[in-house]
Amino acid sequence: MNADDTLRGSASKELFQILRDGAPRTRSELATLTGFSRSTVAQRVEVLMRGGLLRPVGDAASTGGRPSTQFVFNTTGRVVLAVDVGASHVKIAISDLRGRPLVGDSVAIEVAAGPEEVLSWVERSGIALLETAGYQLADLVAIGVGLPGPVEHSTGRPINPPIMPGWNRYDVAGRLRASFGVEVLVDNDVNIMALGERELAWPDVDHLMFVKVATGIGSGVISSGSLQRGDQGTAGDIGHIFVSRGSDVLCRCGNRGCLEALASGPAIASALSSRSITASTSQDVIDLVRLGNLDAIQAVRQAGRDVGEVLTACVSLINPAVIVIGGSMAQAGEHLIAGVREMVYSRSMPLATGHLQITQSRAGADAAILGASMLAIQFVFSPEQVDDVLLLGR
Amino acid sequence: MNADDTLRGSASKELFQILRDGAPRTRSELATLTGFSRSTVAQRVEVLMRGGLLRPVGDAASTGGRPSTQFVFNTTGRVVLAVDVGASHVKIAISDLRGRPLVGDSVAIEVAAGPEEVLSWVERSGIALLETAGYQLADLVAIGVGLPGPVEHSTGRPINPPIMPGWNRYDVAGRLRASFGVEVLVDNDVNIMALGERELAWPDVDHLMFVKVATGIGSGVISSGSLQRGDQGTAGDIGHIFVSRGSDVLCRCGNRGCLEALASGPAIASALSSRSITASTSQDVIDLVRLGNLDAIQAVRQAGRDVGEVLTACVSLINPAVIVIGGSMAQAGEHLIAGVREMVYSRSMPLATGHLQITQSRAGADAAILGASMLAIQFVFSPEQVDDVLLLGR
Repeated sequence: MNADDTLRGSASKELFQILRDGAPRTRSELATLTGFSRSTVAQRVEVLMRGGLLRPVGDAASTGGRPSTQFVFNTTGRVVLAVDVGASHVKIAISDLRGRPLVGDSVAIEVAAGPEEVLSWVERSGIALLETAGYQLADLVAIGVGLPGPVEHSTGRPINPPIMPGWNRYDVAGRLRASFGVEVLVDNDVNIMALGERELAWPDVDHLMFVKVATGIGSGVISSGSLQRGDQGTAGDIGHIFVSRGSDVLCRCGNRGCLEALASGPAIASALSSRSITASTSQDVIDLVRLGNLDAIQAVRQAGRDVGEVLTACVSLINPAVIVIGGSMAQAGEHLIAGVREMVYSRSMPLATGHLQITQSRAGADAAILGASMLAIQFVFSPEQVDDVLLLGR
Repeated sequence: MNADDTLRGSASKELFQILRDGAPRTRSELATLTGFSRSTVAQRVEVLMRGGLLRPVGDAASTGGRPSTQFVFNTTGRVVLAVDVGASHVKIAISDLRGRPLVGDSVAIEVAAGPEEVLSWVERSGIALLETAGYQLADLVAIGVGLPGPVEHSTGRPINPPIMPGWNRYDVAGRLRASFGVEVLVDNDVNIMALGERELAWPDVDHLMFVKVATGIGSGVISSGSLQRGDQGTAGDIGHIFVSRGSDVLCRCGNRGCLEALASGPAIASALSSRSITASTSQDVIDLVRLGNLDAIQAVRQAGRDVGEVLTACVSLINPAVIVIGGSMAQAGEHLIAGVREMVYSRSMPLATGHLQITQSRAGADAAILGASMLAIQFVFSPEQVDDVLLLGR
């Protein structure tokens, strides 16, 4: 993109941000709203139409003379590719410009198989899905990817991910950018899930924390309406915060008393095993709880209290309006969340919990794909990027 | 402001945001940069000049014909009033549009004397200072106020402030707005100090946490470049987070083991008293440390570890680049901060602390006034507000 495009872009941005609300408007209304000349508006509407971001709709009631065409945000004019890489599955979807999946596909691949196997499948299946949905490569505006480990968001590379051998500092964004010719946004799975949960269930909430309790424990933090990654992208990484009852429990990170070493699915299973109850995975624990096993119920409740102890500090520090508990262990009925609530409400200051909701994930298994779509859409429609979208592949 | 002003405002906003960088530009350059017509630019430059936000500077090298005047951000064309209300003092300043104090005044008033006495002084002294600095009431664009207690930022009212009898839900913003005729932004003192510290010492840091350790303990959190207040304005309120060694210590909030009950100045003094050392205030503790009293030094170091235990959780959750330790107890030499560092660096994950700096406040006693100025300036120059500034009192 040359400097001249950048300069002309500023008018497009302003028009497009106005039209993103979904209401149809005439050229003349847009000129009044922005203060741009009629000719600037006409030219930029043309560019936005050519970019697939606007479409004309029926004529406005005219006061006489030539009828005035209205223009509206064309939510299916272009698409994004959403990718959710889990420990033992990969899901992808082609989503519209509101983040809603149009078509999807999934496959059972271990992430430990390495980036070549996983990303080759994403490339093949992504191209095929585009065609199934009736789009071309030039219609794709961006790709959002969630990975099950720490990610350097600015470069799109996983950083020392514990369950992803072969992926350390692999250029995921660069590889998919080369294959598809569009920007690729990569983030860790919990951040993606926070975006998805908010989009689906809490669109008007600006302060939301999504906590995943599964094989590991982590969180995605949305403050003032934006996903917070912190200085090095590790914001939300609550799995290794110290829990007071656990000072003698060794964690895989080398410290003692980490939340993850006490309250993750495998940690609960291990505690049950030490009492001669057969359990080794999150699913084993969930099954025992569903069968009404009292030891398992007690252990899950205690894990909830441990998570709650850590969340009490989080509530004091960031004062969220909503805490969503997700991940596989959230399926163990109300016991986990009951423990969380017990601790948070007894230990926090009243002003911080007066309006706080602590609730189960509603997006469930769909949170990640929806979130990956939103990650891509929020990027391409940010004020800094929208020009590039208009020009890409056109 | 009527609808017509709002519509025309959009061009002013864009011009002004471009010129805020301090570089001088001609009307013709501004038309090229924005895509606005020459007549729109000429008209809006005129409005910004009349509003005191732009001033003309020497002529640009002309290629012949009429010489082109350049325009530049006029940082002293208008002013803000900054107010720092402490437990036993009130400071005010008239600051320029970069937040730098031009003239100031202070007085010893107990905040417990109530809002009438404190705010009457602010009103009288504020008007007098404006005159001293050579400005009129119409030159004032906004007021920023810091208070030593919890504040509902959206309404500008203190909420159940423990050391401010008579102030609960008092309409501080409304009162000063009526007296001065401009918008009034109110926040708690620690948030203000975080803004001031960042402006003075860390202007390029987007993730900063300012921790005040004094009679109370609190923090101000800047994430992604913005002060974070959370859903109910209590973000940063870390004084009542549980510390593991303190489960038998009762806090004034009614819970046990709160950070403030263990590591504030009076808490350290109380612990020393129980060992027959005469101390009751933060200053007593600081004096003992400066005299080399080993018990006092040990107690301050332990308080640092307690603060550090809480900050370890904060580092995991928000991943700051800089943690600044301020407040009166930060004057007790390096002992407090040494305890903080010991705990944070031993307990946190390497990725979160690899680039983390933990440091003493550099703004010191000036942090609050500078921060109150920045609170006012950031508000009036936000994209939503700049129109109002232009029209106020003109």
